[in-house]
Amino acid sequence: MSNTFGKIFTVTTYGESHGEQVGVIIDGVPSGVTITSDYIQQVVDKRKATKSIASTTRLEEDKVTISSGVFNNITLGTPIHISVKNKSHKSTDYSEIKDVYRPSHGDYVYDMKYGIRDYRGGGRSSGRETVARVIGGAVAKKILDELNIDVIAYTQSIGAISINENINIDEVYQNKLKFPSNDLAEKCEQYLQKIKSQGDSVGGTISVTINNLPVGIGTPLANKLEANLSQHIMTIGGVKGIEFGAGFNNSHMLGSEYNDKMYFDNNVYKNTNNSGGITAGISEGFPITFNVLIKPTPSISRVQHTITKDLDNTTINIKGRHDVCIVPRVLEVIKAHTYIVLVDQLFLNMHSNINNIKNIY
Amino acid sequence: MSNTFGKIFTVTTYGESHGEQVGVIIDGVPSGVTITSDYIQQVVDKRKATKSIASTTRLEEDKVTISSGVFNNITLGTPIHISVKNKSHKSTDYSEIKDVYRPSHGDYVYDMKYGIRDYRGGGRSSGRETVARVIGGAVAKKILDELNIDVIAYTQSIGAISINENINIDEVYQNKLKFPSNDLAEKCEQYLQKIKSQGDSVGGTISVTINNLPVGIGTPLANKLEANLSQHIMTIGGVKGIEFGAGFNNSHMLGSEYNDKMYFDNNVYKNTNNSGGITAGISEGFPITFNVLIKPTPSISRVQHTITKDLDNTTINIKGRHDVCIVPRVLEVIKAHTYIVLVDQLFLNMHSNINNIKNIY
Amino acid sequence: MSNTFGKIFTVTTYGESHGEQVGVIIDGVPSGVTITSDYIQQVVDKRKATKSIASTTRLEEDKVTISSGVFNNITLGTPIHISVKNKSHKSTDYSEIKDVYRPSHGDYVYDMKYGIRDYRGGGRSSGRETVARVIGGAVAKKILDELNIDVIAYTQSIGAISINENINIDEVYQNKLKFPSNDLAEKCEQYLQKIKSQGDSVGGTISVTINNLPVGIGTPLANKLEANLSQHIMTIGGVKGIEFGAGFNNSHMLGSEYNDKMYFDNNVYKNTNNSGGITAGISEGFPITFNVLIKPTPSISRVQHTITKDLDNTTINIKGRHDVCIVPRVLEVIKAHTYIVLVDQLFLNMHSNINNIKNIY
Amino acid sequence: MSNTFGKIFTVTTYGESHGEQVGVIIDGVPSGVTITSDYIQQVVDKRKATKSIASTTRLEEDKVTISSGVFNNITLGTPIHISVKNKSHKSTDYSEIKDVYRPSHGDYVYDMKYGIRDYRGGGRSSGRETVARVIGGAVAKKILDELNIDVIAYTQSIGAISINENINIDEVYQNKLKFPSNDLAEKCEQYLQKIKSQGDSVGGTISVTINNLPVGIGTPLANKLEANLSQHIMTIGGVKGIEFGAGFNNSHMLGSEYNDKMYFDNNVYKNTNNSGGITAGISEGFPITFNVLIKPTPSISRVQHTITKDLDNTTINIKGRHDVCIVPRVLEVIKAHTYIVLVDQLFLNMHSNINNIKNIY
Repeated sequence: MSNTFGKIFTVTTYGESHGEQVGVIIDGVPSGVTITSDYIQQVVDKRKATKSIASTTRLEEDKVTISSGVFNNITLGTPIHISVKNKSHKSTDYSEIKDVYRPSHGDYVYDMKYGIRDYRGGGRSSGRETVARVIGGAVAKKILDELNIDVIAYTQSIGAISINENINIDEVYQNKLKFPSNDLAEKCEQYLQKIKSQGDSVGGTISVTINNLPVGIGTPLANKLEANLSQHIMTIGGVKGIEFGAGFNNSHMLGSEYNDKMYFDNNVYKNTNNSGGITAGISEGFPITFNVLIKPTPSISRVQHTITKDLDNTTINIKGRHDVCIVPRVLEVIKAHTYIVLVDQLFLNMHSNINNIKNIY
Repeated sequence: MSNTFGKIFTVTTYGESHGEQVGVIIDGVPSGVTITSDYIQQVVDKRKATKSIASTTRLEEDKVTISSGVFNNITLGTPIHISVKNKSHKSTDYSEIKDVYRPSHGDYVYDMKYGIRDYRGGGRSSGRETVARVIGGAVAKKILDELNIDVIAYTQSIGAISINENINIDEVYQNKLKFPSNDLAEKCEQYLQKIKSQGDSVGGTISVTINNLPVGIGTPLANKLEANLSQHIMTIGGVKGIEFGAGFNNSHMLGSEYNDKMYFDNNVYKNTNNSGGITAGISEGFPITFNVLIKPTPSISRVQHTITKDLDNTTINIKGRHDVCIVPRVLEVIKAHTYIVLVDQLFLNMHSNINNIKNIY
Repeated sequence: MSNTFGKIFTVTTYGESHGEQVGVIIDGVPSGVTITSDYIQQVVDKRKATKSIASTTRLEEDKVTISSGVFNNITLGTPIHISVKNKSHKSTDYSEIKDVYRPSHGDYVYDMKYGIRDYRGGGRSSGRETVARVIGGAVAKKILDELNIDVIAYTQSIGAISINENINIDEVYQNKLKFPSNDLAEKCEQYLQKIKSQGDSVGGTISVTINNLPVGIGTPLANKLEANLSQHIMTIGGVKGIEFGAGFNNSHMLGSEYNDKMYFDNNVYKNTNNSGGITAGISEGFPITFNVLIKPTPSISRVQHTITKDLDNTTINIKGRHDVCIVPRVLEVIKAHTYIVLVDQLFLNMHSNINNIKNIY
Repeated sequence: MSNTFGKIFTVTTYGESHGEQVGVIIDGVPSGVTITSDYIQQVVDKRKATKSIASTTRLEEDKVTISSGVFNNITLGTPIHISVKNKSHKSTDYSEIKDVYRPSHGDYVYDMKYGIRDYRGGGRSSGRETVARVIGGAVAKKILDELNIDVIAYTQSIGAISINENINIDEVYQNKLKFPSNDLAEKCEQYLQKIKSQGDSVGGTISVTINNLPVGIGTPLANKLEANLSQHIMTIGGVKGIEFGAGFNNSHMLGSEYNDKMYFDNNVYKNTNNSGGITAGISEGFPITFNVLIKPTPSISRVQHTITKDLDNTTINIKGRHDVCIVPRVLEVIKAHTYIVLVDQLFLNMHSNINNIKNIY
């Protein structure tokens, strides 16, 4: 099923950017979890475009409706459907993009694959769809909360602006760019202002850490934890790369440097975490760390060469307000997928050992 | 199913490094494809450790047996089982690693997850298992051959030694390190000799290109082509990162630079390929390019601090001959998984359009 | 995923009987299929309780909303979401069934499994949920229509009233009980009137025939056509048995009687169809026939012994109007599932043969 | 995957009747379960054709080899591969069936679907393949044994000979026909002798009871317990029907008769078990009962009309020794699938409730 994320805890989304609504069925949610509309609404509001230099996209009310699976604010163990209406989808003038393929957008490949496209916007490949994933993640998070497992993410770089060692996690949600440094965020705002004035855009990288995941999570071989996280996160529009632990920049390391040495001092510890907390596809019981690469927003206010539906050469200058940088918004979607993967993997691990099974039955 | 790769073209492997044998069931193979034992044997032989400075691991005969699904060298449409005996698994002295966890190996996490481990070697997390994947890939390749789709891969870097612009694809299989430059390979051999003499190891990166894949392949959203490739390739032991197109090093690019502009000149072309041939998770009909990061081999001939099964602090100096660098061997496994993904995605695309369906029935 | 029907053409439903709405995501629908709200509405209206002696259940407006996947009445190849509001769910007085388990209802097992239950009605095990399946089937039917494949179903028996040889398919939709005989239907109405007056209920059997399915459909071994049909149809509330071809009543037949002998006379024919059109799990290119067993509606207007939530012995006399017989309504759900299975299997067969694959690419 | 049974506890089989070997990968087996070659061998020996009037098929040595997933007789949590060589497959003279389609065999449909067939025997649709399923079931049984869950099956009828009320479960394995009555078995032997002398065959029905399954097992909606059992069992060659509880013969029952009334007397009880122990797709905590219909063996020693590969009319008299009745052999395969379904469903239920999850983590 091409629109379903997860194996046994599953998140299935639907909705085009300019259709009636976007929604999600979350299946495999255990009974007995507290889920309120207010809670989901708060998570969705967090994702919503907050006016900033990076992002100025359409303002949606994004009012969530839970229409099944929850009774008196408690999950029933049945599928949960949550949806959000598209409000501002009608006013858009789409004549410009109906017959002209925007560079590095999905327009061309969708037309080639399906022979038809909802030309009123990005359709399924629009960021609009991610509200459904964020809702799915919000439900998953409720289960992780019960187990005290947490995910932290921050903007690592935007274009040429990179965080150095002065990382203060507390500051991530104090600035709209979600840098772990308010100072750097301020500097980056000026940088983005310049790019915006040129009608251009940038991408960046995001750093993610999972805390308190028990040792032993991850399902070799085909469902190794890194593979599962990569699969989910690479489905997010604009994501073009992922690296765990030491990463591409440390590909020159020797084994003697790279290997994380364990020691015991009341508890098991490692001197380093070059593995990113995962060995052989299984969590080590240490923080899991990975970085994600996001390409520049393809919509820019500059003349670009391209082709029409009839394969004529032409140029396009995409009208309207564009996001200069989607990194801070993608961050919430990455967190959502991380939650979903973790719940799915925690469930899959429950029958990996006969003792667990005898413990339940 | 945790040991099955693929959705409708599936490759399920079994076998521990020191068990009786390693094998694979390949299901979803169409009838009418020519598969001979000789062909599979050739592919397996290619993967087998050829004596080089990089790799000196055990010499297995690796004789393949096809035991179902093929009749008179033609596939029946039924599941194909192919296996390879483990020959040299009995002589190993494993007393050293039975109770001591090798740093950055799967020993510790396997014990934590399952409470039991085949301590005679790497078990399922050993590179030995990949022979089964390579066989699965060999069967997939036969289908791609019918459609003229090809995959090229080369060693991009080993430790501190990187390929520059002088890339000659023809030379990849002329040197044991699989660099697209015999000169660089020679230089790297000396580099590896030095590392080996220090009892150390290195990792590296591999570059992959898919040619002739038609436009329209990839299944949004959950099965986007990048996501599917990432999921598969991140399951290979030692792989710690993947990037498509321009990659992490170009995260500073502006949208105006990054966007690939299309034009028409008898055919559709792009000026650049920063997207790596995939937009919105769907192939563009251009070469697909990605790079893979491989960590240093964890087994080294140096004293390392670690803990025992009883959580006592200790040191270990892993005996025996170790691979200084597994990059050239992992390359074959990456190709195998790429083949598997492509066949799976080509199949999934067949019912994406009503015209295809009416074409068949 | 426990609420998803199908492998690659998938139908995922949500909604409790007394929740906000019931809905469905249909994924794997090829692009280019014509789907209108009017068409779906007609199918849903057909399922809706028409006032008859058999069925007097609540009258829902059942207005369908298509909220994604269809653009200008043509499918996009993206997931289709269709939903129906629950209107009459608020007035119900459920105090009676909140703490008392209705015999042969899902109340007890849901409470035991999940520790919580939407006690305002049948929840997920209510017939109300089947509107979502019927919608899924309606979409599948549109694909079958393109291939001229058809499904016919009729009421074979209701309680003690059975159809004999005088079967007239044209009359099925001329009577509300969907017997292929208006005369028998009239006789049965009187029979049901008597049962109703006693506050009792009955079940029955339904006969199904699939016409024009090509030879070769069905995916051995785990997805044999009979297995796939059985799996789907046995998920319908009240269904307790299924038999293909000659059936249980002919279990005494000898092989020489049972075997269907083929002959050729411009085309391939069989003298008999005891196999029900399927051999070795694969369609033979002849009509596929099976019968389905439906148990009596569990809600009856009679005093029944049962237990309370606190495990006290008690009695219950379920208030309100009850369906005397749900057979004519279940018939539409069986047809829906048959459509879904057929599309799924037709798709799965497309890559069973290398010739098909070369035909598309 | 068309040759994989189960969702998270999976059994994937391979092997044609006249190929090299038949085998199975069992994935999702928890670590810590005791599995010995001797145990598997005993189960396989039980299935093997014991010389009787019913069954005289080829004698295979059927020596099992466990080649992965078990270490020192304990499961590792990794996939288990077990295989059995085909010994007697070489001597068969298959010239007769190479070009002529045997009535009610899979020959014709396999040729139509795949365009190729292993004409040396029944290929994948042969009963030979079921040895792999029986092995899968044997592994599943080991897990059920830990939970004290048991499955009992007996021959209910063979052709015209049916068991009446005098059922003695202890006698099932005291006669080769597996009737729960040695007297009836003796009578049936004479009946079969007569049928055999006429070169004919018969089918029959099998009754199955699951004991001690906890309440709450079964995964609505798409994986209801009846649906899951039906799907598995309908994949067994020769099976043409399944009914739960009261069954087709009681389709005339009124709701007031059919409904099982619960009462409490230190424990929860029911007066009757017409539901067969399952309501709303979930186990009730009472015995689960179902019957399975098996068609007559298609191979008979009588002249039958049929067609050739070139669509010419012809006759065939299938040579060799045939099973007069496969019911006692199919019984073991039904038990195997029942074990597999139960383990799969027990696992799926483990994350249905937040309490279970908190219990493990």
